[in-house]
Amino acid sequence: MTELLEEILEECARYTKEGKLADYIPELTKANPDDFGIFIISGDKRVSKAGDFTKEFTIQSVVKPILLLLALMDNGIECVKNHVGVEATGKPFDAINYSEQKLLSENINPMVNMGAIAMCTLIKGDTYLDKFNRLLELTRLLANNPDIEMDEEVYLSEKRTGNKNRALAYLLKTYGMIKDDVEDVLDCYFRACSIKVSCADLAKIGLTLASHGKSQFTGERIFPAKYAYYVNAILMNCGMYDGSGEFAVKVGVPAKSGVGGGIMAIVPTRMGIGIYSPALDSKGNSIAGIKALEMLSKKLYLSIF
Amino acid sequence: MTELLEEILEECARYTKEGKLADYIPELTKANPDDFGIFIISGDKRVSKAGDFTKEFTIQSVVKPILLLLALMDNGIECVKNHVGVEATGKPFDAINYSEQKLLSENINPMVNMGAIAMCTLIKGDTYLDKFNRLLELTRLLANNPDIEMDEEVYLSEKRTGNKNRALAYLLKTYGMIKDDVEDVLDCYFRACSIKVSCADLAKIGLTLASHGKSQFTGERIFPAKYAYYVNAILMNCGMYDGSGEFAVKVGVPAKSGVGGGIMAIVPTRMGIGIYSPALDSKGNSIAGIKALEMLSKKLYLSIF
Amino acid sequence: MTELLEEILEECARYTKEGKLADYIPELTKANPDDFGIFIISGDKRVSKAGDFTKEFTIQSVVKPILLLLALMDNGIECVKNHVGVEATGKPFDAINYSEQKLLSENINPMVNMGAIAMCTLIKGDTYLDKFNRLLELTRLLANNPDIEMDEEVYLSEKRTGNKNRALAYLLKTYGMIKDDVEDVLDCYFRACSIKVSCADLAKIGLTLASHGKSQFTGERIFPAKYAYYVNAILMNCGMYDGSGEFAVKVGVPAKSGVGGGIMAIVPTRMGIGIYSPALDSKGNSIAGIKALEMLSKKLYLSIF
Amino acid sequence: MTELLEEILEECARYTKEGKLADYIPELTKANPDDFGIFIISGDKRVSKAGDFTKEFTIQSVVKPILLLLALMDNGIECVKNHVGVEATGKPFDAINYSEQKLLSENINPMVNMGAIAMCTLIKGDTYLDKFNRLLELTRLLANNPDIEMDEEVYLSEKRTGNKNRALAYLLKTYGMIKDDVEDVLDCYFRACSIKVSCADLAKIGLTLASHGKSQFTGERIFPAKYAYYVNAILMNCGMYDGSGEFAVKVGVPAKSGVGGGIMAIVPTRMGIGIYSPALDSKGNSIAGIKALEMLSKKLYLSIF
Repeated sequence: MTELLEEILEECARYTKEGKLADYIPELTKANPDDFGIFIISGDKRVSKAGDFTKEFTIQSVVKPILLLLALMDNGIECVKNHVGVEATGKPFDAINYSEQKLLSENINPMVNMGAIAMCTLIKGDTYLDKFNRLLELTRLLANNPDIEMDEEVYLSEKRTGNKNRALAYLLKTYGMIKDDVEDVLDCYFRACSIKVSCADLAKIGLTLASHGKSQFTGERIFPAKYAYYVNAILMNCGMYDGSGEFAVKVGVPAKSGVGGGIMAIVPTRMGIGIYSPALDSKGNSIAGIKALEMLSKKLYLSIF
Repeated sequence: MTELLEEILEECARYTKEGKLADYIPELTKANPDDFGIFIISGDKRVSKAGDFTKEFTIQSVVKPILLLLALMDNGIECVKNHVGVEATGKPFDAINYSEQKLLSENINPMVNMGAIAMCTLIKGDTYLDKFNRLLELTRLLANNPDIEMDEEVYLSEKRTGNKNRALAYLLKTYGMIKDDVEDVLDCYFRACSIKVSCADLAKIGLTLASHGKSQFTGERIFPAKYAYYVNAILMNCGMYDGSGEFAVKVGVPAKSGVGGGIMAIVPTRMGIGIYSPALDSKGNSIAGIKALEMLSKKLYLSIF
Repeated sequence: MTELLEEILEECARYTKEGKLADYIPELTKANPDDFGIFIISGDKRVSKAGDFTKEFTIQSVVKPILLLLALMDNGIECVKNHVGVEATGKPFDAINYSEQKLLSENINPMVNMGAIAMCTLIKGDTYLDKFNRLLELTRLLANNPDIEMDEEVYLSEKRTGNKNRALAYLLKTYGMIKDDVEDVLDCYFRACSIKVSCADLAKIGLTLASHGKSQFTGERIFPAKYAYYVNAILMNCGMYDGSGEFAVKVGVPAKSGVGGGIMAIVPTRMGIGIYSPALDSKGNSIAGIKALEMLSKKLYLSIF
Repeated sequence: MTELLEEILEECARYTKEGKLADYIPELTKANPDDFGIFIISGDKRVSKAGDFTKEFTIQSVVKPILLLLALMDNGIECVKNHVGVEATGKPFDAINYSEQKLLSENINPMVNMGAIAMCTLIKGDTYLDKFNRLLELTRLLANNPDIEMDEEVYLSEKRTGNKNRALAYLLKTYGMIKDDVEDVLDCYFRACSIKVSCADLAKIGLTLASHGKSQFTGERIFPAKYAYYVNAILMNCGMYDGSGEFAVKVGVPAKSGVGGGIMAIVPTRMGIGIYSPALDSKGNSIAGIKALEMLSKKLYLSIF
């Protein structure tokens, strides 16, 4: 298996040349576009890994399923669905999901920025820092890694330059979908995106979702199975931005990518996969990461279809 | 199992009162809104059924996955993907998927009308009637039912009143996505939508897709497994119109609905399901049909997530 | 004055190199891109002219104000406004003025194709050929030229290739804004666009609008003054496609352009101007024609603002 | 003339019942919906007035032409046009004029909020308070009224609740159309909207625009005539929000409305008109104010078409 992974990385490394680093925040341009790592953990905790799997990077949009999970744990499915819809938008992740002077919960979903920002308001906590700390705690628990921390530089960089997200948040505010102070909500969101993880972390979080909420590390049930079905289904339809359809036909498993270069893939009941390769395609997905998952899916019959 | 199905139909029958019959073509308003049937066939060909499962109705959009399958069989994945994209549009099925004076294959998918009309041109055949006849043949083969025919009245009604589809087709023509005569292409499409099926037919077609192309009835491989992965993945993301996300979280299997009231659901490797109940929700999906599938999914752990 | 016009043509001739001939119908590419003519007629019937002012070309969209005038004469302001709105659309002339699955009269105006096609249905006449003949008659009357005819080649070319207009017309049909046979309505529209005129004709039609409906040639009142106010106001806001704002600040008079290369400008109470130069800018307006009008407006203080 | 105005007010007063007060900022709901005043001043400084013409109200969007004028005076036509386009958008005044992940100067105009906010950055001044003070000075000069002040309550109310404008401004920032601090720019814009005026002030500002920049009060030229042509043309096409087309056909003169209930109308070379009636139609225009202008235009032949 390690051999297979090494082969795949070698085969797919050339695609890293075709992508480019995210540049919407200055900090992300400091990544090494040649980095490429993969980490797989199966239901019986067997681990396979290759390449730069120990490299740390910011979680970015891969935090969205964790945010959704916490929103579900805090509020239940009905409440979350009433605030943030479940349909693919047909538009880029940072689009203004709004039309004809209306903004309805049906127009957004938990995997686009507007939906993710709205979900921050659903997390329990006295302050937005409390909310973020609870999210960080859950991330650590899902990954079975108490050392996960936030990247201060990236957080500050996001906060300084995140004007598109500010525009989205003020629009949410205008239409009553944010009640609190917009900068407080955004602070929580920018912190969430700046959580630092490795391929191993993503693979383990993926495994917990693949195991429908039961930690394979502690035996503990972290969340009810129904929330895993909810999160995984949404990842299938909207997890890879406006490339989700392409990913579904090529790879066929729920997954979430982030502009930091990470991808978390979930093979229900079977395994969690973490990939890192920061060169992105035009939709914001790790270009070599997707190619690797495509090869892996074919070799290991991963598609759930 | 039959008992379970009867229970479910009884429980869900009240939802038929909340929906309404499709009225965009006059013929469809002649359906009986109280009709409600279900037919399930599993991999070992065990059958369970309840209600009005023998009723015949027009296949309407449920023909789209069959159309896609034939386009794939005739042209391969790359060609089909180049002509008709794979991303959810975020819009209703009959929307004009077009923006800023451009129409690109990425803007459409095989489950929206524009994509389905475009797929008609990909089917092999000397005339559009030949193309349709090959589609009809494939439908019979997938359903293991040589008696499947077209409903002449519905076909003529569609042809007479299908002006929205005409607008969509002329737009495809304008942007070079239809090369042939628009009325010829539409004739094939209107015929395709008018194929008459029962719950049993839909269940059996679903089973063939769940079995990845191998007929459980004849043992014959009708199409390569990779096309089943392709079709099922697209159904998951776009099969239930702009209610696909909701269906994914609630039911969790690939499915296709039609405004005739039919739903075909595919439980990969396990079973095919056909449902009929012509009262529709606002998105054009059988309202009681979805409810029944939701209950069934919970009872039988059908979700693939 | 003739000297001034010759100077302006000389000065602006170089702009013809920056534009290109309309190519959406094959016939239009046969024009000579170097042709450039101007014809001005004032309230006291003094004429000034220069360049290729005798060249004939098809009227194309410049027929829209005449179509609007006849619709007003046949139905009155209220009726016309209820069928076809009066607001600028912010979109190109052949755009699909439609959003969110609705098509309302407010979404269109008489100067975009959808509005112009809809107006054909408002003209009185037993058949669509009758309607067209009445339009042709009115055109002759306004231009004081009984010899105006339709260009058969261009008409057939439009009819053969006008698929975008077909798409627009079927959309109008879908939403009840066309009751009759779509091809009949389009036939009338394609004929209307194919009327053959010269700069002199456009200038004289413009003068009749500038004179608020009283023919300066016969002394006869052709239509009530209120319709001139209506038509001229709409030309100001929407006459030059999505370049109407630019034209208003630069030239400052109501005008209408056509992709055949003609521009008709109306200086209320003072004069009518006809220009011909078939090289178009990216919005479909005669590029040198606009430049000439800009110079002329500065020299003769034409702006009504 | 006074008699005519009184008649018109009496006739149109009933329309105030059909409109409603702006409620997007709390302060505006404190207006008296029955207030109705008009003030006309002609080129020879003859004044006619009726009703509540002394009532003060906030200028709101009627400040946009003054903002445009100052931007022109500070930067010239080319620069202003490069930053803020001139085409009608086909959308409401507070719309997000943005599509397909791009925001270009062509997408906005000086009369929609995005354009007006962008224009604040073009005003000269060391700070945004300086910029505002220069705008206030110009307003006083145009109105020949040194006592014009800002309404502190309305300003604070706008600043507190103007989240839609914040969303628009952060979008401008994202796409490089604002370089400075967004809150600073908005502060200037909110102050500008909160300038307190009467019908007399609006009429006098209108007269200065009708007189192409030469003050009829001091004989001084305040700005070059070409800027008046520019401003008046844009008002014609976009001044009455997405009701500009309707206004053009019914009244036929450049005008600007504000959600405070004011309308400033400009009859080029002839007169300036100020109207106040705070009950608005669905597009944000004073409902009785428009009716009064329509009657007045018919009686006095005001249409420039």
